[in-house]
Amino acid sequence: MIIRRHPVLLFAVAALTCSGWLAKAEPRLSDYVRPFVGAQGEGNTFPGPSAPFGMMQLGPDTDTRNWDTDSGYEYTDPTILGFSLTHLSGTGCPDLGDFPFVPQVGPPAFVPGTKDHPENGYQSTFSHADEAASVGYYKVKLQKSGVTTELTAGARAGILRFTFPASDEASIMTDLSRVIDGGRWHVAESRVRVEDASTITGFHLVNGWAKERYLYFAARFSRPFDDGVIIKDGEPVIYHSYVNYRFRSRDEAVGTNLQFLAKYKTHADEVIQVKVAVSAVSAANALQNLDAEIPGWDFEKVKEATRREWDTELSRLQIEGSQEQKETFYTSLYHTFLTPNVYQDVNGEYRGFDQNIRQAKGFTKYTVFSLWDTFRAEHPLLSLIQARRDSDMINSLLAHYDQSADHLLPMWELQGNETWCMIGYHAAPVIADGFLNGVRGFDAEHAYEAIKATAMNPHYDGLASYRKLGWVPCDEEDESLSKTLEYAYDDWSIAQMAKALGKQADYDEFMKRAASYKNLFDSSIGWMRAKDSKGAWRPDFDAHLFGGGVDLKGTTEISRAQYSWVTPPMVPTVTALVSAGCIGGVTNLADVTEATSSQYSWFVPQDVPGLIALMGGKEKFVEKLDSLFDAKQSEKFSKELSANDLRGCIGEYWHGNEPSHHVIYLYCYAGQPWKAAERLHQVITTQYGNEPGSLCGNDDCGQMSAWYLFTCLGFYPVCPASNQYVIGAPQVPKATMHLSNGKTLTMTAENLSDRNIYVQSVRVNGKEWDSVFLPYGELKDGGSIAFNMGPLPNKGWGTGGAGQ
Amino acid sequence: MIIRRHPVLLFAVAALTCSGWLAKAEPRLSDYVRPFVGAQGEGNTFPGPSAPFGMMQLGPDTDTRNWDTDSGYEYTDPTILGFSLTHLSGTGCPDLGDFPFVPQVGPPAFVPGTKDHPENGYQSTFSHADEAASVGYYKVKLQKSGVTTELTAGARAGILRFTFPASDEASIMTDLSRVIDGGRWHVAESRVRVEDASTITGFHLVNGWAKERYLYFAARFSRPFDDGVIIKDGEPVIYHSYVNYRFRSRDEAVGTNLQFLAKYKTHADEVIQVKVAVSAVSAANALQNLDAEIPGWDFEKVKEATRREWDTELSRLQIEGSQEQKETFYTSLYHTFLTPNVYQDVNGEYRGFDQNIRQAKGFTKYTVFSLWDTFRAEHPLLSLIQARRDSDMINSLLAHYDQSADHLLPMWELQGNETWCMIGYHAAPVIADGFLNGVRGFDAEHAYEAIKATAMNPHYDGLASYRKLGWVPCDEEDESLSKTLEYAYDDWSIAQMAKALGKQADYDEFMKRAASYKNLFDSSIGWMRAKDSKGAWRPDFDAHLFGGGVDLKGTTEISRAQYSWVTPPMVPTVTALVSAGCIGGVTNLADVTEATSSQYSWFVPQDVPGLIALMGGKEKFVEKLDSLFDAKQSEKFSKELSANDLRGCIGEYWHGNEPSHHVIYLYCYAGQPWKAAERLHQVITTQYGNEPGSLCGNDDCGQMSAWYLFTCLGFYPVCPASNQYVIGAPQVPKATMHLSNGKTLTMTAENLSDRNIYVQSVRVNGKEWDSVFLPYGELKDGGSIAFNMGPLPNKGWGTGGAGQ
Repeated sequence: MIIRRHPVLLFAVAALTCSGWLAKAEPRLSDYVRPFVGAQGEGNTFPGPSAPFGMMQLGPDTDTRNWDTDSGYEYTDPTILGFSLTHLSGTGCPDLGDFPFVPQVGPPAFVPGTKDHPENGYQSTFSHADEAASVGYYKVKLQKSGVTTELTAGARAGILRFTFPASDEASIMTDLSRVIDGGRWHVAESRVRVEDASTITGFHLVNGWAKERYLYFAARFSRPFDDGVIIKDGEPVIYHSYVNYRFRSRDEAVGTNLQFLAKYKTHADEVIQVKVAVSAVSAANALQNLDAEIPGWDFEKVKEATRREWDTELSRLQIEGSQEQKETFYTSLYHTFLTPNVYQDVNGEYRGFDQNIRQAKGFTKYTVFSLWDTFRAEHPLLSLIQARRDSDMINSLLAHYDQSADHLLPMWELQGNETWCMIGYHAAPVIADGFLNGVRGFDAEHAYEAIKATAMNPHYDGLASYRKLGWVPCDEEDESLSKTLEYAYDDWSIAQMAKALGKQADYDEFMKRAASYKNLFDSSIGWMRAKDSKGAWRPDFDAHLFGGGVDLKGTTEISRAQYSWVTPPMVPTVTALVSAGCIGGVTNLADVTEATSSQYSWFVPQDVPGLIALMGGKEKFVEKLDSLFDAKQSEKFSKELSANDLRGCIGEYWHGNEPSHHVIYLYCYAGQPWKAAERLHQVITTQYGNEPGSLCGNDDCGQMSAWYLFTCLGFYPVCPASNQYVIGAPQVPKATMHLSNGKTLTMTAENLSDRNIYVQSVRVNGKEWDSVFLPYGELKDGGSIAFNMGPLPNKGWGTGGAGQ
Repeated sequence: MIIRRHPVLLFAVAALTCSGWLAKAEPRLSDYVRPFVGAQGEGNTFPGPSAPFGMMQLGPDTDTRNWDTDSGYEYTDPTILGFSLTHLSGTGCPDLGDFPFVPQVGPPAFVPGTKDHPENGYQSTFSHADEAASVGYYKVKLQKSGVTTELTAGARAGILRFTFPASDEASIMTDLSRVIDGGRWHVAESRVRVEDASTITGFHLVNGWAKERYLYFAARFSRPFDDGVIIKDGEPVIYHSYVNYRFRSRDEAVGTNLQFLAKYKTHADEVIQVKVAVSAVSAANALQNLDAEIPGWDFEKVKEATRREWDTELSRLQIEGSQEQKETFYTSLYHTFLTPNVYQDVNGEYRGFDQNIRQAKGFTKYTVFSLWDTFRAEHPLLSLIQARRDSDMINSLLAHYDQSADHLLPMWELQGNETWCMIGYHAAPVIADGFLNGVRGFDAEHAYEAIKATAMNPHYDGLASYRKLGWVPCDEEDESLSKTLEYAYDDWSIAQMAKALGKQADYDEFMKRAASYKNLFDSSIGWMRAKDSKGAWRPDFDAHLFGGGVDLKGTTEISRAQYSWVTPPMVPTVTALVSAGCIGGVTNLADVTEATSSQYSWFVPQDVPGLIALMGGKEKFVEKLDSLFDAKQSEKFSKELSANDLRGCIGEYWHGNEPSHHVIYLYCYAGQPWKAAERLHQVITTQYGNEPGSLCGNDDCGQMSAWYLFTCLGFYPVCPASNQYVIGAPQVPKATMHLSNGKTLTMTAENLSDRNIYVQSVRVNGKEWDSVFLPYGELKDGGSIAFNMGPLPNKGWGTGGAGQ
């Protein structure tokens, strides 16, 4: 992993670290990060310590079966189960949570118990008063045992520091049988092995969201176990001739439902540390990662190294503003740098998509590609300020393609697996946008071949019919409306790369495909509408209901075969929604993906003028946009889904999910940027913040946060791969962006205040700037964007819209 | 894998191959091998093609759930299930049988059906008239489909050649869900992947006898599939939006119960070949093994290369004799060279005991160590004529030790796993015997450390009590009588190596332990007897009943928890035996391992004079030996166990299992070698041969066959690591042994005939030889052993016994 450091900033960080007076005078950037932001409700962020883009995420788990704890942690939960080694951050699907470590005092429990009755298992109540989280650090006191647990982590390794009370029966249990499974996943195999008197290694193979996930760990304990016992099915694994018939090792076991118990007698306040590391390749690699990254036992040193790394990373994008603004901003930046995650051992080996072990040649292998989300703003941000990593990520996408039996780029990649989650082929805009924004270090011709092969795949998700008809037919394919719109945009991004590489014929073909969105606009209802293979509109289609409001299966009962994503805790909610007749599928399994047509119809970022034309011109377009924000949601829907507000709803605009993310900026295309300014300010001030509950939807591996960052800066990549940003309205008075090429871009927003939210004028690199469009070319060598803000719209600025 | 070739012999083989007239005049050695020998009944040998010590054993499977088909094949079975890639040969426990390929015509079946009703599945009847097996080759015509299948194999790769009738519905199915499981094993995970239009790879992880066994395969088909379909749970894995919700690859699947179906339209007599290879490391390595070993499609070339390799290997030990003798002899030699098996890919990688992937440095890694059997004669034979391989095998044992969480050498190693099958620590005599017989190429000091650590292990099978008390106490440990005797011998072998390395204190300690056998001799009954931790003899002990006749659990019902080895098909037999009161466990789970005390009491190879003394002198010793052969078995036992004769019973002497193997030679220690001559001749002529049913017990990875070879030569390693053989009576007129050091040893038996079975005189290297003991020193540089045989005992020869 190569980190591009700014020498000057490094010096500044070093100065901050070394001089107490300076530290007091000016907090370190990492001090502004609030790891709990998003940990309450649907944000699903991960609050534990992690290195930037780290492979290991040590953290507390409060639940494993609730889909609000996809990251392992929900702020409102009363109990903690243990501290596992890996976590997702902000996803809408659970997985990972591998190898929890559980300190206990007294007779050890091997089952979790329940939140209501933690006394029936190993989970313990805790209080937020006894809890703390900062960059590279997490701490909590477990009330049942009195054990204080502190965590810190580097890239592939971390330390758990347990402070025990005096006890003859203290223990640390490691559970190989449990993952964050949402009630559905399955540990197919595991093994644990006592390597020496204070070291264990382990492994499990999980059939989870990632359907075939191998993970290994190594753990070195600071004190040899008084006794180390392997537990299977709740019982110690022992050798006794009469019981076991033939010899059975007490230092190694294989199978399912395995745990390891390190037993100790402790004195009061005795500290026992456990160094841990993971690898997707082997136990030997996990040990190598551990010993290479944390040779000693200095918890503070590891924590400080990680903080320092974060200070460097966070310095890439700095702002001025209030404490709350800084906390919100740097926490958002922190979230955008949590994923994708390094997925490669210190010796360079990684586990490929075909499960073969490989050396990444010339790049660092990354995992966790939530591309349906992150193509929008996360990757465009990385391409500006983390170009080297973005290049590595693109190489990682290409490695996946090279190893794909289906010759497809990733859709939603997780630890060497394809989850087939969500729709589209958004690796295309990620690669095209990176390439067009000057990200290099990958084979562009090979990348283009991969993009094109993916877009031409004859089997993937209705692509064949789409190519033939110009739309994905709703009688053949679920989510056909959303797929059509997203394919069309992805195709447009491919065309841009084709053009840059001089492939005119491909450009022409993909540009033609990019216009496919037009085939689904039903002017009779004014919205996009699903169409069948014969060209007939979907009957009974409702543009304002989830999924199009169509019950495709002709049933109002939940069939688990159809609704395979519905886990037991969700059944009552989903059943209620289906009974109320408002969904064919609460999020998917209909014509529209996790949205209404009134939300999705705006997804034509590649040709907003074309969409404006379809909708009847700029005036009607703005009216329709207004109607989205002003809409009263279907009563049926609001009544049933009480957690609605958590999703960031403003009328039918739902900021909590990605289909809405670019929508506000569309006002700018229609010549009314002040309406964008109003809505942007509303979202920034009501749906982000520095509290655990501040995120209104899944952070989605940084996408929600990246939206915040761009919006604060005053511009947003509405159409990645267009080399063009759309100017909205800045939300912080000053920002400095250190571009990957070493240049610096400065944004200032003069007179900005809670009242002065409207752009009066803009100067870009000293030039008067009357357009709402900001080409990449104006940013790439650094420079300045100077906003002048005021309390009323300047209806003379930026009104040219998409026509200009 | 390095094969030591004799240049002259290679030339001879080449000449035989190239000149038809010579081939007619003198068959190749490989022509004498009858692969079906031992395939009927309990021999459990593997009849398919295999390279010497090959990693892959392509072969037919007639059953997977019957313990008489531990090798996959039982000669009397009426049907064939398919042709899998790996097999054990001669074991008494089933495993392997990975990735069967099944040709079918008509609608394909995905379940096996039954022997009685093969029409309900993919199995097919066949006739031995349509079947053939020779070295490197197997052929059979399946009656149901009319498909002729031919197999050939190299070290890590092989070819299946299918000749189809004309059909619109021909197919080749590969089953990833099935192994030879005896009804107990479990495929925990599998994956299959279509690499291109004519190539697949696959993997499964099996919880079997080897509890955590990873195996990968690659297969290239000579013709692209007309269609290639992955099957899960009997249904094609397809993508259909309404069925699968989100995209599902048709070229890759993960989970359990997976099969792959290659579909073809064939014309009459169309040949489709499938090249296959295995790896324990990865699919990539399996492909590399395949392409490196079989780059083309020449079936005959692979077959001939393997035959040539066998001709070279078989030439190490040649005899004169009748056709039947040659067939029996070379088949036996073939069996001794089938295992252990190479367990390393062409790129040098192998999967270690700790599941880490490693490079074997300076040696070839082997697997399948049936050490309780093979320490007796198999490894002593290899040390003489396969020293380089024996060195590699010792290095393989040491690698296992280095990777063992328990710091133990292997007991019964199988594909990187410890099965904990059988008792003792017989890696010790294997290593000590090799070292003392001049096998080099391993670190002797490290080897000794490994042996000693194993023998000092505080946890293994009653060792702690054995060290404290001098015996394994029967109130603490099953099989305590057998364990005590075997530990004592193993300890003696350790002492010999200690002495050779100048470790006098260790020598003294282990020689003291070697005398432990005396603690279990109960002079009141004249046999070894189990003793408890207080020193009291086991009550109700019967030296003539299996296991000591003691039902340790106080029950005559079979408890599956106790009798965990009892599979459903065995329950009626075992229940009958238990009800008859004749066993505590039919084979184990009592004081004596798979035997009676009257069989086991002779296991003091390290101190036969001491045993003679305990038994009251040579005369009584011989009387007791006679009584063994003349005994009438317990009526109860004979009545219940009707397959008795298959085990090679002569009274209570059971040649079908290893505890009896050295017993006949004990006559020689007591001054009556002619009695040995009689019994040896009886066993050789009644319990070996060239027919499928000729083996009376499990071949046990070559041990039964190695006994035959040594016995034919006229001497046997009664006490490996003693550097001394015991002269019995030769069974072939002439033998030539090419020692590993390039020297040649010639054995001649003048006047040998079916009547002239008694040794009249012996000359060793030209010297008159009146002793029954033949030191290794007399053989090691080659030379001659000249027997003169006659029709009556020469009671003046070799009568000094152990006293001389």
